[in-house]
Amino acid sequence: MQPYLIAPSILSADFARLGDDVAAVMQAGADVVHFDVMDNHYVPNLTMGPMVCQALRNYGISAPIDVHLMVEPVDSLVPQFAEAGASIITFHPEASRHIDRTLQLIKSHGCQAGLVFNPATPLSYLDYVLDKVDVILLMSVNPGFGGQKFIPATLDKLAAARDIIDQSGLPIRLEIDGGVNPDNIADIAAAGADMFVAGSAIFNAADYAEVITKMRQQLAKVPR
Amino acid sequence: MQPYLIAPSILSADFARLGDDVAAVMQAGADVVHFDVMDNHYVPNLTMGPMVCQALRNYGISAPIDVHLMVEPVDSLVPQFAEAGASIITFHPEASRHIDRTLQLIKSHGCQAGLVFNPATPLSYLDYVLDKVDVILLMSVNPGFGGQKFIPATLDKLAAARDIIDQSGLPIRLEIDGGVNPDNIADIAAAGADMFVAGSAIFNAADYAEVITKMRQQLAKVPR
Amino acid sequence: MQPYLIAPSILSADFARLGDDVAAVMQAGADVVHFDVMDNHYVPNLTMGPMVCQALRNYGISAPIDVHLMVEPVDSLVPQFAEAGASIITFHPEASRHIDRTLQLIKSHGCQAGLVFNPATPLSYLDYVLDKVDVILLMSVNPGFGGQKFIPATLDKLAAARDIIDQSGLPIRLEIDGGVNPDNIADIAAAGADMFVAGSAIFNAADYAEVITKMRQQLAKVPR
Amino acid sequence: MQPYLIAPSILSADFARLGDDVAAVMQAGADVVHFDVMDNHYVPNLTMGPMVCQALRNYGISAPIDVHLMVEPVDSLVPQFAEAGASIITFHPEASRHIDRTLQLIKSHGCQAGLVFNPATPLSYLDYVLDKVDVILLMSVNPGFGGQKFIPATLDKLAAARDIIDQSGLPIRLEIDGGVNPDNIADIAAAGADMFVAGSAIFNAADYAEVITKMRQQLAKVPR
Amino acid sequence: MQPYLIAPSILSADFARLGDDVAAVMQAGADVVHFDVMDNHYVPNLTMGPMVCQALRNYGISAPIDVHLMVEPVDSLVPQFAEAGASIITFHPEASRHIDRTLQLIKSHGCQAGLVFNPATPLSYLDYVLDKVDVILLMSVNPGFGGQKFIPATLDKLAAARDIIDQSGLPIRLEIDGGVNPDNIADIAAAGADMFVAGSAIFNAADYAEVITKMRQQLAKVPR
Amino acid sequence: MQPYLIAPSILSADFARLGDDVAAVMQAGADVVHFDVMDNHYVPNLTMGPMVCQALRNYGISAPIDVHLMVEPVDSLVPQFAEAGASIITFHPEASRHIDRTLQLIKSHGCQAGLVFNPATPLSYLDYVLDKVDVILLMSVNPGFGGQKFIPATLDKLAAARDIIDQSGLPIRLEIDGGVNPDNIADIAAAGADMFVAGSAIFNAADYAEVITKMRQQLAKVPR
Repeated sequence: MQPYLIAPSILSADFARLGDDVAAVMQAGADVVHFDVMDNHYVPNLTMGPMVCQALRNYGISAPIDVHLMVEPVDSLVPQFAEAGASIITFHPEASRHIDRTLQLIKSHGCQAGLVFNPATPLSYLDYVLDKVDVILLMSVNPGFGGQKFIPATLDKLAAARDIIDQSGLPIRLEIDGGVNPDNIADIAAAGADMFVAGSAIFNAADYAEVITKMRQQLAKVPR
Repeated sequence: MQPYLIAPSILSADFARLGDDVAAVMQAGADVVHFDVMDNHYVPNLTMGPMVCQALRNYGISAPIDVHLMVEPVDSLVPQFAEAGASIITFHPEASRHIDRTLQLIKSHGCQAGLVFNPATPLSYLDYVLDKVDVILLMSVNPGFGGQKFIPATLDKLAAARDIIDQSGLPIRLEIDGGVNPDNIADIAAAGADMFVAGSAIFNAADYAEVITKMRQQLAKVPR
Repeated sequence: MQPYLIAPSILSADFARLGDDVAAVMQAGADVVHFDVMDNHYVPNLTMGPMVCQALRNYGISAPIDVHLMVEPVDSLVPQFAEAGASIITFHPEASRHIDRTLQLIKSHGCQAGLVFNPATPLSYLDYVLDKVDVILLMSVNPGFGGQKFIPATLDKLAAARDIIDQSGLPIRLEIDGGVNPDNIADIAAAGADMFVAGSAIFNAADYAEVITKMRQQLAKVPR
Repeated sequence: MQPYLIAPSILSADFARLGDDVAAVMQAGADVVHFDVMDNHYVPNLTMGPMVCQALRNYGISAPIDVHLMVEPVDSLVPQFAEAGASIITFHPEASRHIDRTLQLIKSHGCQAGLVFNPATPLSYLDYVLDKVDVILLMSVNPGFGGQKFIPATLDKLAAARDIIDQSGLPIRLEIDGGVNPDNIADIAAAGADMFVAGSAIFNAADYAEVITKMRQQLAKVPR
Repeated sequence: MQPYLIAPSILSADFARLGDDVAAVMQAGADVVHFDVMDNHYVPNLTMGPMVCQALRNYGISAPIDVHLMVEPVDSLVPQFAEAGASIITFHPEASRHIDRTLQLIKSHGCQAGLVFNPATPLSYLDYVLDKVDVILLMSVNPGFGGQKFIPATLDKLAAARDIIDQSGLPIRLEIDGGVNPDNIADIAAAGADMFVAGSAIFNAADYAEVITKMRQQLAKVPR
Repeated sequence: MQPYLIAPSILSADFARLGDDVAAVMQAGADVVHFDVMDNHYVPNLTMGPMVCQALRNYGISAPIDVHLMVEPVDSLVPQFAEAGASIITFHPEASRHIDRTLQLIKSHGCQAGLVFNPATPLSYLDYVLDKVDVILLMSVNPGFGGQKFIPATLDKLAAARDIIDQSGLPIRLEIDGGVNPDNIADIAAAGADMFVAGSAIFNAADYAEVITKMRQQLAKVPR
């Protein structure tokens, strides 16, 4: 069983002081930097690209960087992010015509690869690529749209994905993104997740360490 | 006659310390923040969106922010950047089906509006919208591609654009972007430009003030 | 168990006298106005937009209007049709990158929401959005192409969809569109449908009331 | 010199009583039915397609129908509208990769062909196709967006187009669309237009004949 | 049980002597000409179109030609290839919005129809069209990208597709494409395939007949 | 003054015996192989890609190969054709967002570069790239559509392009494509062309040498 990982989403960080803010949240006990990439085509918003990722590496951030590509098409950005220091690259299966190929492309650049599932996307995209997937990321809100709450149907979907992973016997991470906070993180973990993206819940808090500690305390109560 | 304006492109700034770096370059004597937005569709690169612009305003940057949209389509990002603090918004005429409408949209949000011309784009797009244009931006490299030098044919194009502006009698800025440095800035100004984007020439220098001062000294020699 | 609903498709009505023709068919006993929207992109035909829907409301049509969007992308038309008087809005899952979000968008505008399945589209798009769906519409012809007959494989698909609905315990309508007429409506109802779109079968008849009565007589024979 | 033509745009007619309303406006003295087709891609709105055109013919409208295609791509709709009774078909040059070919296609279906120019579109698209163009339509508002006024720069553009037509010696119509009303129609005619689209100015009036008569009185004052 | 079919892919043939090369491989014992069509949109490569297919027929090739469309959109090429002599036409379900309709279109032109599954594409696209499918083609590499090996997970997928076919009782061919050679053909047949595309394995061999014979010898050992 | 060049278009050659047919036409006195690439997106047809070009080189064709890209987008095919043996690569300016960049890309791969103008495309695309253009190709039919005749307006356009070239003092080729034959080649040359694509006029002739000789005889009469 793998340890739980907490991945603050830098979408909620201060972009004018990104190096300092990311360093602070890692210092406060986070495990992974979650990096949200939007291109104003796959989602109706534009965030940031490979140069910002590279700047974090140049600043001295050494934690794993988990790049979530909300872009379409996908392939041309993969080598750019790999060179800019990404550790994990995930993408949406609807956004690539050649999913197996994109997974292979990510891995050939030395990164871990993953698929992201929108709230309504069926899990059948996993049927024939489980052996090439390091991370399954379930969205519990619709990516790229503001002001949404955790979608309850995601708990059932987490359980279904957990079953698929456990039956495969493969060390695949089950990541969750959208509306995660100290109040619901235990239920989400109980449903099967072991990697937790959190944005405003962490970066809007006065004390990053306090909220991360609260999350870990909640996780510690989940029977595994 | 309007004073010359120097507009450092934050593409070459340090994205991990963006607030500090932009503040430093403004302190060093720059006039305008040039903000390059790429969406990986109009150009093969993805840079940064409205949230980064907003973060600069929140940090306390009060200089005009000149947003250059290398995106397609254009319209949905206009209100987002206006709300995020943009002062000027420019776009490429090939990227909008309704150029007059997009210009009106920008102005209706309280920003100055401009058209950007790729090296090969003819100036005929100006024929019937001069009265709605505050800035004409000529690209002297191909936007979104690295490692290019100032394209010499741009000097003739600057002269042609200068003629169009002078004949209109309108207070339109003539901006230039691509490969500008202290060595060629006087020739570029002599050809008609009065607003100068510079990225690596400024941000790669050890002393921002020194290079900006050099540029101003060169500009002072240009007969007007 | 919900009553059967008959929904004449105005694609077969007289567009030069639309108000009168729709009023006549409602007077003749129909339950719902079925409004087919095609944009010449999702399907190779262009029909009519929100202004025509609004004109029916202005004329005085008070029956529910069931808007079937054969368009791509979907989201920008949702508020337009809601304001124009739509009661139900359905769309094709392949035409939206963010299906859960589009369903929420429709409901946030006060309309009922539904998904439409092309003849070959698998039902797995329903897996995680059943709680947000008011209508499931199965196409028994390929939308946007003329001269097609009822595809027999749809009967099995209706049965599969009926099972999904019944197991959910939710009051979801199961609508069918394509080649429905008095001769096959009983078989279709027996397979699970409870809402029936019919175009030429009704509007090409000399007496609308007669054909609608015949349909209801057939439906009355179906054991439930 | 050709007589002036008045072309009411049915966008402002009553879609629930379209046959009656169009018949009334023709009876009131109009010359041509102007038929606005929008596909929610070239412009952000969807109006109506070939079936509505056909319904007008079936109703008995015998006046010329002037179909303005605000769609992209163009070619597939040309034969559909020709078969549905169109007399003139115009399209936007930016919306067709093969402008000469589309013009030929329209004419091969027995219709007159024309190009439409958005407010900012340069007239250079006319350079090598004048011999295939029956109508030049200048937009004096941005098509597909509501609530706009007549753009004054269109008067200069009309004069430029008039020069091109007169120098060619060809019997090409110069049509104007957007914000035309009895108050400005004389100035517009003086600038060179000889075919006038008007929507709300006519259909929102209590008495169609009165407003059309006013327009003709104004036109009669223009020296030719 | 149907006989095994060997289908050399002309992607590996000599395009300067295509007639001779194809004739030679058919003479050497092949059953079907496999014709790979790429449009540089669905896959990042462009190969050849209907004129080349027609040229083979004109040359005198009478064997069945199995056209694999790696293109998007699909429909406009179907009649062109049917007229050019295609016997079978297969396409990717992700590349057609109206899969059932495209299958009907192919059959209405007198060809056999099939669906092609990329390595990661789930088989659920077959759920409601089995009765219209003559061939199921599973890709064991990602189409359009060079230098890939047979993806082992395809063996399980073959078995799943074989089950679906056998349960349907329909005479559907199960074709495999990608990395097939004499060393693995027996395992592939054992998993359920009965039609084998091979490109370089055949055309790069000194003696076409030798390698085809080897393949048949291997196939003969597979218990059916 | 440069010698006239005759460039047979292999679109009309025998694709089953392409090496032999091209060798024969070169033997018969042609100067350049014209290679038409269509992708079923920029034009409604699909022809052939880099592999066929490479096959001609492998066969031993040493004449210049003039690749006309009727594709969109353009850039990804440039290196593929350069590696496959192209000598000249031309493209349509409407098909590239970054025309100057695409011209530079072609030249950086060691090929000559050119722009192609559809019948209606204005020459203003040449305004700022003349120094990077080796060939200007004017289409005298609409590319990708069959059964068209030489468009007479092209003669004026040739004269305009000839003026632009002569005033530049640059050694730019002026190529013409569409409906060229021995009867009109002299008029076309008199209008300014010096490179002549001909397809069916040559390949449909019984004796290639005879028709090419006739063309040269006609050209010899043109006063230069």
